Amino acid sequence: MSRAAKLDVALIAATRFQAPEDVDWSTDAEGPEALIEFAGRACYETFDKPNPRTATNAAYVRHIMEVGHAALFEHATATMYIRGISRAATHEFLRHRHFSFSQLSQRFTHDEPTVVLPPAIAEDEELSRLMLNAAQDLAFIHDDLLGALEEKLGTNPLATRQARQAARYVLPAATESRMVVTGNYRTWRHFIAARATEHADVELRTLAIECLRLLRVEAPTAFGDFDISTLADGTEMATSPYVAEF
Amino acid sequence: MSRAAKLDVALIAATRFQAPEDVDWSTDAEGPEALIEFAGRACYETFDKPNPRTATNAAYVRHIMEVGHAALFEHATATMYIRGISRAATHEFLRHRHFSFSQLSQRFTHDEPTVVLPPAIAEDEELSRLMLNAAQDLAFIHDDLLGALEEKLGTNPLATRQARQAARYVLPAATESRMVVTGNYRTWRHFIAARATEHADVELRTLAIECLRLLRVEAPTAFGDFDISTLADGTEMATSPYVAEF
Amino acid sequence: MSRAAKLDVALIAATRFQAPEDVDWSTDAEGPEALIEFAGRACYETFDKPNPRTATNAAYVRHIMEVGHAALFEHATATMYIRGISRAATHEFLRHRHFSFSQLSQRFTHDEPTVVLPPAIAEDEELSRLMLNAAQDLAFIHDDLLGALEEKLGTNPLATRQARQAARYVLPAATESRMVVTGNYRTWRHFIAARATEHADVELRTLAIECLRLLRVEAPTAFGDFDISTLADGTEMATSPYVAEF
Amino acid sequence: MSRAAKLDVALIAATRFQAPEDVDWSTDAEGPEALIEFAGRACYETFDKPNPRTATNAAYVRHIMEVGHAALFEHATATMYIRGISRAATHEFLRHRHFSFSQLSQRFTHDEPTVVLPPAIAEDEELSRLMLNAAQDLAFIHDDLLGALEEKLGTNPLATRQARQAARYVLPAATESRMVVTGNYRTWRHFIAARATEHADVELRTLAIECLRLLRVEAPTAFGDFDISTLADGTEMATSPYVAEF
Repeated sequence: MSRAAKLDVALIAATRFQAPEDVDWSTDAEGPEALIEFAGRACYETFDKPNPRTATNAAYVRHIMEVGHAALFEHATATMYIRGISRAATHEFLRHRHFSFSQLSQRFTHDEPTVVLPPAIAEDEELSRLMLNAAQDLAFIHDDLLGALEEKLGTNPLATRQARQAARYVLPAATESRMVVTGNYRTWRHFIAARATEHADVELRTLAIECLRLLRVEAPTAFGDFDISTLADGTEMATSPYVAEF
Repeated sequence: MSRAAKLDVALIAATRFQAPEDVDWSTDAEGPEALIEFAGRACYETFDKPNPRTATNAAYVRHIMEVGHAALFEHATATMYIRGISRAATHEFLRHRHFSFSQLSQRFTHDEPTVVLPPAIAEDEELSRLMLNAAQDLAFIHDDLLGALEEKLGTNPLATRQARQAARYVLPAATESRMVVTGNYRTWRHFIAARATEHADVELRTLAIECLRLLRVEAPTAFGDFDISTLADGTEMATSPYVAEF
Repeated sequence: MSRAAKLDVALIAATRFQAPEDVDWSTDAEGPEALIEFAGRACYETFDKPNPRTATNAAYVRHIMEVGHAALFEHATATMYIRGISRAATHEFLRHRHFSFSQLSQRFTHDEPTVVLPPAIAEDEELSRLMLNAAQDLAFIHDDLLGALEEKLGTNPLATRQARQAARYVLPAATESRMVVTGNYRTWRHFIAARATEHADVELRTLAIECLRLLRVEAPTAFGDFDISTLADGTEMATSPYVAEF
Repeated sequence: MSRAAKLDVALIAATRFQAPEDVDWSTDAEGPEALIEFAGRACYETFDKPNPRTATNAAYVRHIMEVGHAALFEHATATMYIRGISRAATHEFLRHRHFSFSQLSQRFTHDEPTVVLPPAIAEDEELSRLMLNAAQDLAFIHDDLLGALEEKLGTNPLATRQARQAARYVLPAATESRMVVTGNYRTWRHFIAARATEHADVELRTLAIECLRLLRVEAPTAFGDFDISTLADGTEMATSPYVAEF
């Protein structure tokens, strides 16, 4: 049987911020949320905080959400390193064009492929075994194809690449992939709003919720409007009054 | 054995152009290439064609390429309907973020999936049989999984969708997909430059060359700088002196 | 006094569509709206119209709006030629990044600049005269600067360009500009939603309403959800239940 | 006379990076350049540095440039706070659609506007005086218009905004603006390549060179391929063999 991979997400890069020394302003937050406030105040030069109701960083950031000044969220970015995601899910994920993706190539890597079981299958022992056995069979067929192609095409680097490229066509959509994904907060918020809804694909929904949890550690207010709840089937979803689904 | 699908590309939509009546200008081309010239002349109000060397539409469009005013190519668009493309290839194609894609969903459709054989396999009878048999086996496993999941999850529309969504994880990267793809000429030129090179994936390279041929019928000058040549293995490639590969 | 320019918008390019001959489908609309329906049906291969409630093109396109499948609107495009727009307004317009713009250059053109009066000034004869006289004075200063710079820098093409480039810094934001603007329907819908609201800049609001009127002739359903109303000050606004403002 | 503002650019935000603990890899750089290497190695899982020629971070990053894997540069971002830039220059700058901009609004701010003199004028005392006097006259006319409009439209917030919005049409392109600008390294590299060339507008060229200098402190290799040289007129330009101009 092939091995089943589990989703693993790490926040590996984020925004560090240092206000210009000659601007007479300070705030009660750091990093991305301080930058968002700075950029907002720079539009109106309200560094002296004339409005007492938005004098704290949290109040200011929430105000931005309320008035829909979403462009300010573009200044802060976060990068995730994602493992244990299926090619089926990355195929959908790539539709979110504002992210920057660096994905594990299937043409250059070597190990026996592991697979990601969709939740509806993972929770059933028999179906899991069925899928893992199928994946194992495909791994053998993949190796047979690769061997035959290498014999046929030769072993110079270009031929090797073409052989790998052709052989991978037999691998299933469940094949595990890995990716480095960078996006600004507007894009992450939009992704979560679109993919954490009840009707979304469960694998991407689980990923969206996991990213949300990591982003909240980094920026509790900028992602604090999302409400996470548990559905009847035990999976989670998240919604916000401040971001449209599409 | 599963059925192997062949690439089929049709140009289904393009730019229709009508110059404003009160601008004293006409040209010896129509549609997209006339629009590109109009937009270029609008930047400098040279509707009277002060430069005799760029007085024809073809000379003007070539001049735009030479000076690198690529933004003008964004005004013309073309839409392709592509069938017989593998999910392996659409996964790569989606990386070209400036296109608009509408792709056949695997969650809602019904027929037995056909597959696209990568060229290195298609030209070998034995390897083709190996892959088509594997695809057939996967189609059976897919149906088994789907049946078991439907039994388990029930048959309301949401459950049916979740069952389909999970079952498709076993389908191979070779599975045929179909898509409607719209892009402006700058994007199409960039796609061709990136994917029609010798080192590109053969399935996408074949697609890029096919799109190039269709675009040339529509706009012989705007895509006339690409030179198509045949490689030692019988496949084709295309390059232009006016577009960078990346 | 300088001359005041009036807003003038013409739809000069749009999407022409021809369904592939081997797809058994026809519809009761043409061009962009037929393409949108085709792309939607291609996602689920529902060319046989299994749902009688969306059997007409208008019903199908409205259904797309209701379910928020906005990506389908990206396949149709429209190009406007806009004259009588101020540099103040084009500066805002350029923020809409999904459009393609070709704008009249201030570095290469020659005539005495005309200006666009903001509505609040245009409706007052005395204020209009004040602004038109100021613009006339600036035109003289511009010519003085240009003459002095040309004398100083010389008259080779690069020097001439630098002289023009520097002299134009004295021109007011009201200076008339002209541009060719291409966008897909999703972008046009977003632009109208953002700029036709009550709180938007009046010059851009007027432009957005004018574009909406022209797009409706081309695509009565795809822009039919916008409701145009007249404000107390006689200007117009438009809103739709299907597009968010930001 | 109005006051002339000087260009002032500060790097206020950048990428902070922490490799995942369970990946057996380290490098001899930090922050953005370490992230770029990590993302590149993640595509092929070459964390063990199999190629000794790219074992240092600098060698790896230069290799990325050479092979044109520009997408990796998208993971690192930098934010600048720019003051002393003219509205003429920001109008051009906004064309670079991949940046995120937050710009000082002319509708909400109060002080007497300062102006940015284009270099060809700044170096000439008489022409400077001519432009600064014109700007001063326009500031008076602006205040007259604003006063008259406020009297006419009333002083509720919406009316005040409309009055400011209309009055600013008389302000010259030289008017000083300020902006917070965020972009990833691919975008910054493209901006510098496009705007630091000999033929570019001098104000934007100066800005591009200034940004390049700040980015080099942050990422000496990722911006180390640009060569800065001084032109006959004393201004600077920069070019790289690895980025196309357009």
